[in-house]
Amino acid sequence: MILMPEPSVFSKIISGVIPSHRVYEDDHVYAFLDIGPLAPGHTLVVPKEPAVTLGELSDDASAALGRALPRICRAVCEATGSTQYNLLQNNGERAGQVVMHVHFHIIPRPASGGGLEVGWTPGALDQSVGAALAEEIASHLGAGG
Amino acid sequence: MILMPEPSVFSKIISGVIPSHRVYEDDHVYAFLDIGPLAPGHTLVVPKEPAVTLGELSDDASAALGRALPRICRAVCEATGSTQYNLLQNNGERAGQVVMHVHFHIIPRPASGGGLEVGWTPGALDQSVGAALAEEIASHLGAGG
Repeated sequence: MILMPEPSVFSKIISGVIPSHRVYEDDHVYAFLDIGPLAPGHTLVVPKEPAVTLGELSDDASAALGRALPRICRAVCEATGSTQYNLLQNNGERAGQVVMHVHFHIIPRPASGGGLEVGWTPGALDQSVGAALAEEIASHLGAGG
Repeated sequence: MILMPEPSVFSKIISGVIPSHRVYEDDHVYAFLDIGPLAPGHTLVVPKEPAVTLGELSDDASAALGRALPRICRAVCEATGSTQYNLLQNNGERAGQVVMHVHFHIIPRPASGGGLEVGWTPGALDQSVGAALAEEIASHLGAGG
């Protein structure tokens, strides 16, 4: 017996088992309104490929997602009148991921308030630490990525 | 006389006028360490096309950015040992955009603390409001996006 993983809530939305307010769909991408919006027009953009984290997504699925994102951003802005917005994509429970299926939030930032609240406590990058770390990251991005 | 816009700090980084700790580069994408990191490995991923907001980015530049993101996420995780991370992309000053050139933050979320702090105050989507809004957004995403 082969145990198949339970489809995520988003896989069920994509297949229509769970209803959603769909705003966009193509061969690789499905987008719909978040039912718990931070601001009007808060939209989730999901690859049909059921990867959990962005790093696990295939090149082709991710390129298709990348191609669709600006179009969906423009449409959300045109429909809501917002011109400013944030994109957020969480990977892992500690990073705030709730549904274990890759998704980008498009969150309008209305002049009237609401939207994503972000805290920012930056450090300072030491030059020699930075040089070594950049080299280490780059070493994992050799030919073929 | 034609006035050209001043190149952004990121255009100057891409062209090498301003130095950076580069981790990845291809024909369309440049990635480097943020000098004010929220956590070790905090990386900025920038399209070479000098659009201000994601919605202004061309389809091809955005697809190339999408294709590169998972590879860079994996490399950041491998180099830092972090398995959890957030992506954030800000559009507009009110949404926290500081450099007026599209960029994605990849921000590791180490078990030891640090990383992106996010506040989340969701509303509830009214069914009939949602249906009308989804239809309005979708109407801006007709054939050709």
